[in-house]
Amino acid sequence: MTALEPRTVPGCAELAERYDAVRALTERLASPLSPEDQSIQSAPEVSPTKWHRAHTSWFFETFVLAAALADYREFHPRFGYLFNSYYNTVGAQFPRNHRGVISRPGASEITEYRTHVDSAMHHLLGGESDAETLRLVELGLNHEQQHQELLLMDIKHVLSCNPLRPGYTRQSTPEPTATPPLTWSEHPGGFVEVGHDGVGFAYDNEQPRHQAWLHPFALASRPVTNGEWLEFIDNGGYRRPELWLSDGWATVQSEGWHAPLYWEHRDGEWQVFTLSGTRPVNAAEPVCHISYYEADAYARWAGARLPTEFEWEAVAADQPLDGRLLDPDRLHPRAAPDGRGPRQMFGDVWEWTGSAYLPYPGYQPPAGAIGEYNGKFMVNQHVLRGGCFATPPDHMRATYRNFFPPAARWMFAGMRLARPL
Amino acid sequence: MTALEPRTVPGCAELAERYDAVRALTERLASPLSPEDQSIQSAPEVSPTKWHRAHTSWFFETFVLAAALADYREFHPRFGYLFNSYYNTVGAQFPRNHRGVISRPGASEITEYRTHVDSAMHHLLGGESDAETLRLVELGLNHEQQHQELLLMDIKHVLSCNPLRPGYTRQSTPEPTATPPLTWSEHPGGFVEVGHDGVGFAYDNEQPRHQAWLHPFALASRPVTNGEWLEFIDNGGYRRPELWLSDGWATVQSEGWHAPLYWEHRDGEWQVFTLSGTRPVNAAEPVCHISYYEADAYARWAGARLPTEFEWEAVAADQPLDGRLLDPDRLHPRAAPDGRGPRQMFGDVWEWTGSAYLPYPGYQPPAGAIGEYNGKFMVNQHVLRGGCFATPPDHMRATYRNFFPPAARWMFAGMRLARPL
Amino acid sequence: MTALEPRTVPGCAELAERYDAVRALTERLASPLSPEDQSIQSAPEVSPTKWHRAHTSWFFETFVLAAALADYREFHPRFGYLFNSYYNTVGAQFPRNHRGVISRPGASEITEYRTHVDSAMHHLLGGESDAETLRLVELGLNHEQQHQELLLMDIKHVLSCNPLRPGYTRQSTPEPTATPPLTWSEHPGGFVEVGHDGVGFAYDNEQPRHQAWLHPFALASRPVTNGEWLEFIDNGGYRRPELWLSDGWATVQSEGWHAPLYWEHRDGEWQVFTLSGTRPVNAAEPVCHISYYEADAYARWAGARLPTEFEWEAVAADQPLDGRLLDPDRLHPRAAPDGRGPRQMFGDVWEWTGSAYLPYPGYQPPAGAIGEYNGKFMVNQHVLRGGCFATPPDHMRATYRNFFPPAARWMFAGMRLARPL
Amino acid sequence: MTALEPRTVPGCAELAERYDAVRALTERLASPLSPEDQSIQSAPEVSPTKWHRAHTSWFFETFVLAAALADYREFHPRFGYLFNSYYNTVGAQFPRNHRGVISRPGASEITEYRTHVDSAMHHLLGGESDAETLRLVELGLNHEQQHQELLLMDIKHVLSCNPLRPGYTRQSTPEPTATPPLTWSEHPGGFVEVGHDGVGFAYDNEQPRHQAWLHPFALASRPVTNGEWLEFIDNGGYRRPELWLSDGWATVQSEGWHAPLYWEHRDGEWQVFTLSGTRPVNAAEPVCHISYYEADAYARWAGARLPTEFEWEAVAADQPLDGRLLDPDRLHPRAAPDGRGPRQMFGDVWEWTGSAYLPYPGYQPPAGAIGEYNGKFMVNQHVLRGGCFATPPDHMRATYRNFFPPAARWMFAGMRLARPL
Repeated sequence: MTALEPRTVPGCAELAERYDAVRALTERLASPLSPEDQSIQSAPEVSPTKWHRAHTSWFFETFVLAAALADYREFHPRFGYLFNSYYNTVGAQFPRNHRGVISRPGASEITEYRTHVDSAMHHLLGGESDAETLRLVELGLNHEQQHQELLLMDIKHVLSCNPLRPGYTRQSTPEPTATPPLTWSEHPGGFVEVGHDGVGFAYDNEQPRHQAWLHPFALASRPVTNGEWLEFIDNGGYRRPELWLSDGWATVQSEGWHAPLYWEHRDGEWQVFTLSGTRPVNAAEPVCHISYYEADAYARWAGARLPTEFEWEAVAADQPLDGRLLDPDRLHPRAAPDGRGPRQMFGDVWEWTGSAYLPYPGYQPPAGAIGEYNGKFMVNQHVLRGGCFATPPDHMRATYRNFFPPAARWMFAGMRLARPL
Repeated sequence: MTALEPRTVPGCAELAERYDAVRALTERLASPLSPEDQSIQSAPEVSPTKWHRAHTSWFFETFVLAAALADYREFHPRFGYLFNSYYNTVGAQFPRNHRGVISRPGASEITEYRTHVDSAMHHLLGGESDAETLRLVELGLNHEQQHQELLLMDIKHVLSCNPLRPGYTRQSTPEPTATPPLTWSEHPGGFVEVGHDGVGFAYDNEQPRHQAWLHPFALASRPVTNGEWLEFIDNGGYRRPELWLSDGWATVQSEGWHAPLYWEHRDGEWQVFTLSGTRPVNAAEPVCHISYYEADAYARWAGARLPTEFEWEAVAADQPLDGRLLDPDRLHPRAAPDGRGPRQMFGDVWEWTGSAYLPYPGYQPPAGAIGEYNGKFMVNQHVLRGGCFATPPDHMRATYRNFFPPAARWMFAGMRLARPL
Repeated sequence: MTALEPRTVPGCAELAERYDAVRALTERLASPLSPEDQSIQSAPEVSPTKWHRAHTSWFFETFVLAAALADYREFHPRFGYLFNSYYNTVGAQFPRNHRGVISRPGASEITEYRTHVDSAMHHLLGGESDAETLRLVELGLNHEQQHQELLLMDIKHVLSCNPLRPGYTRQSTPEPTATPPLTWSEHPGGFVEVGHDGVGFAYDNEQPRHQAWLHPFALASRPVTNGEWLEFIDNGGYRRPELWLSDGWATVQSEGWHAPLYWEHRDGEWQVFTLSGTRPVNAAEPVCHISYYEADAYARWAGARLPTEFEWEAVAADQPLDGRLLDPDRLHPRAAPDGRGPRQMFGDVWEWTGSAYLPYPGYQPPAGAIGEYNGKFMVNQHVLRGGCFATPPDHMRATYRNFFPPAARWMFAGMRLARPL
Repeated sequence: MTALEPRTVPGCAELAERYDAVRALTERLASPLSPEDQSIQSAPEVSPTKWHRAHTSWFFETFVLAAALADYREFHPRFGYLFNSYYNTVGAQFPRNHRGVISRPGASEITEYRTHVDSAMHHLLGGESDAETLRLVELGLNHEQQHQELLLMDIKHVLSCNPLRPGYTRQSTPEPTATPPLTWSEHPGGFVEVGHDGVGFAYDNEQPRHQAWLHPFALASRPVTNGEWLEFIDNGGYRRPELWLSDGWATVQSEGWHAPLYWEHRDGEWQVFTLSGTRPVNAAEPVCHISYYEADAYARWAGARLPTEFEWEAVAADQPLDGRLLDPDRLHPRAAPDGRGPRQMFGDVWEWTGSAYLPYPGYQPPAGAIGEYNGKFMVNQHVLRGGCFATPPDHMRATYRNFFPPAARWMFAGMRLARPL
């Protein structure tokens, strides 16, 4: 059961409506950005905004339109080379780490490209389509939703490299609030069902659903906060090798890490660069922009550990699928709500798990180019769960597996503690 | 239950005997090597032979003698700095990647150092000792056995960098033999007990023993052979990105891999550098010196996958603990013996598993410096099982977990296929 | 006698007129470029167009306006940090190799910055000023003229990195013409006066004027052409180590050089990327975009050598100061005109000399920040003479010393042969 | 007139005697070193002692014996590849920066190689030889003398990388002495003859002798001392960018330079690593192990400049050719002797000049492989003059040109001030 074989596929009309909504949201997210903002690549793993806008269009052009519309005319003969990310099956790719040296096509030409693709997609979805095509449209929409979050991660990094520290938007700073106390939810362990059941969309890497065996554990009621992280810093957290994995300690040394990414100690206080510019660190908010190495070190310092992805999923399966997911007017994680039991499992910050990103038992990637979507990244990464304030709301579920290398910090990642019982 | 809390500890007399045997074997392994041979570091992860000889002595000096003998006099005040590998708890370390710039102490002074430590150890083991000291002696012996294998891995790499391709020894080349056909052993899955039960020595990372749930699978009867690897090469294995993990393919490109490490295509045939010099590739022998990336790509090409470490252990637990382990007169993997069912689970070549090297449920490293032995490496590595022709025979067991980064190739690593049922 | 102590200084009115002309030309050169084009840095030594536009304004703001106008209000408090190139005396600088990660200020805000500075400069030059101020204005104008050429060099590099190979302008390709034969002009050697005599503007590095002693030599009548360079290539020029300086040969190997920068062998012929896009190599044009290493190797291959800068100057001193210098409508070197004697000494392509860039006897840099303009670069570079098609016409003279490291190729550099008599 | 066409060539008997003396001195210099000492390469530009011993033998084998003795049998078929330094004309070379990974041949096998070559050379020089052969023998002896100094430079660097800081020899520390005051010798300038006159041996790069024109200048009576250098340090010399060439300042920053190479501030005082181990800095000794960048910065700080190589030579031509040159029992520069006028022009420390290393007017390298000896290095280097305590006494003359890149510090280089009159 893979992403391309869901039990149900939405129909053309429904997909057409979703298509318009998703495409419009991408443009809304890009709208505060100048042509210059949209062209910068501040690190090899960061892509320019205009590249995201083009690549998501290329995805529909290549995997849907070229296959489904006999007379489809591609917008530009070289865009396949420029905007293919990593699909070797469909051709060579312009080197990822040079995306920032391409001034043309500019942002406005990318708008034309998007319009061209949209027009063809409207034509396609205005008629009848086979299930395979509709599945690929659905995949393309989910793909674009992933890039909406990437667009925000990436533009934050771009703007942070500017010594003027310009904000992406001008949203007001929330008032500091109290931090609810951390409590623990116990889980008896035993057999749990994990992975996606095939009802509705899921990626191939969430499948097949299967039985897993858990040992008894407890999970923290909320993510680790900035206030708790400040204690870790003040307790020498970044200077004590015994707290760190060996590779983590080497990274602390070579990169000079002494706080989460985007934190700066200025004028006697800790400040943090946000999508609305620099402001004081708010102790009640969940910590964000930490690497796996930092999450692991913090857990050791706290006498706990990270949950496995199945422990996390076992608890999350019982939680309502809400939380602070993408709202373009509120682009920052917020403090946990009061209350008992697990909270903030979805939204605010992604949560590192102790699980390496590996295939589920019996996993098979889809045939063809789409098989390169997820499977080939199953090494050297750890799984994160739960989504964040930049994840589109209809793009989240308890079985969703995000993944990043252990040193990565530019995604909106925090952590939640666990411990064995 | 950790390495330092085994149920039984050997007594002084038994340990004294084992001490002499282990220490003598290290010297035997170094004996074909000139002072120059013993001083070279050919890559950051390769240590000079004399460093291994000194570091294993430092281990006894630091963790046993300094603690147990009130009047112990260290051999040299700066050797702690020079020969501490990575134990931050006991002090700073000379940078690992500069071990090859140290000409003094020379090989003969290291011999004096070893004699000094041996003399004190004889004194210690000639009397009475507490259980904690004996446990540390036992750990030190296992530690030195690990370095015996490392010494052979490292000197092979050193000699391979010399365009004269000198051999470590002059052992005769075995006659080519037939390759037994590959068959599959089926396993029904279900609950298995994995991890060490605490009877006899084990490392902390093999513990605690715990229940794991397996899905039904089949395991190949023998490792992949050179002959099969040649088919992979001839079928474009190193030129087809669709077979590779993304990081693996990037490594193939950047490193120019086109065959296992130490293979060279010369004079129209594939040759391989061995500890006895260069000779033709023997199709019947298990393939050796492959990375995780290559093992994974081969498995995909073969329509199979790598076993997990628990699948491997579930099968190995029923196998006799024999095989071609360290014999200084036969330093090369040999073809699988004929017969039915799983063979060569132990010895010849280490076998990559698909399992990331992570802590077992409830794992706790020992307190103090010894806690740095294994635990801090639990990221960015994959587990290998079963030992090889360079692993001392009394240093192997079904629960033993070796681990290396996925791009490493200089250890004696091969692979065995698995598939789901 | 330094740049800041010329014998004559133009008056306010004359400088005001020149100011407007120079500033307008910069904007004209930037006008074909989109905001995205203006923001890219394609190599550490390449600056974005908008940076050139801002930096030249910062120069007037910092060295003229802040000193001469008591009530001058700087445009932005952080622009000093962003747009200071390398003047340590006036403050820290944003790292040169990160200029391409700054999206804001954008191109249009830079326009506002230029307008702000222009307005203050008009105010200043509309009144009376002391000689020191006027000298600094003159220096600022010459400085901006240098950046006009740099702007063209840099944008050519930026656009060349784009696989679409977009042109900066759409100028027509000249018809291939015949190459005039190379003849030699003999010079008897002896004493010559070199360096600037202080009449009119010159940089400090052209001074003091002094006597030099030359051995008899001959100088080629024109630069080396593309056609001659093709012979060098066809004769194995890039594959024969005996033709190269040792550092040059190492660079050929490490960089994979096999032709001048911007040459590509496509569809069976040599093509070259120009400011008007890609077109076939024209054999009659002077070769351009060669490094010192290549110039030196070619000279050795041709049985000749490069001229020294004093040999070049001794011949150029008698030549009329004309040639194909900057004309925004003709941005490419052209074939030598017919005729006898030395031609093309000025314009078309800069000419590498065999002289290291070192101070003249008695050289003293000016006091203060302006002293950093030239003097601190007097190591690891070679001198080029004569200007090119991108050098503003009133910015050239026989004593002008340009300089680049021996491996640099992105400037418009060619070569002319010399030989001893 | 090149190195291979001197006016006079010593005869066989004289060369045989010199051959034995030179070869014996090399072995004497290597004699304090263990096999391990002789095998280490501590930096890409540093060669192992045993490599020097082999390479100098290879030079005779390749350029003399193979050509002059019809039945000469090379010692080993692969030594040409291993011990060719950089002569492309005679074949490929093992990569220079990997010389430290070769354990075999070991030091004792190199001794056999030397004996083999010596025996053949004795045979050759015991008979009659043509002038060309004798010139090559003479060149080989001068070549080996250069490597004697390199051997000492290189082993000092090797030993300095060892945290035990072992000494090469155990020579006593001289008593601190008074520093003679610095005085200035004036030179009227005008025409001088520079370069070698062809009487006796000289390298090709010292030729042709030619007329040069000097402006009046003054030269310091002695090199800069450690005591003066301490003032430079204390005056912020390494922290003030305005004193440095731009490339020099970048190097200071990237390398963290804050004193000459081998200086360490320990226990409240400046100490220096010498060939006899670490000892306090002696204020009266000439400063040693400084780069061109440091020499240039010091001169600027002192209100002076470096002499050009012709200024230096013009003064040295009148000095007696003595000084503290190589004496294996005194391997460290010593304080200037008392007296008036220029002293220490020869010996103690090499003196940086402000002259780039470039060919003399009319320079032609010899034909064939020997032409690669000097000419191909004439870029990116500066000239040093005068020899040092490690230069063999009969290997020095006023016209001798040594050369190193401006950032190099491991040679025995100091400096002497000059100033214009």
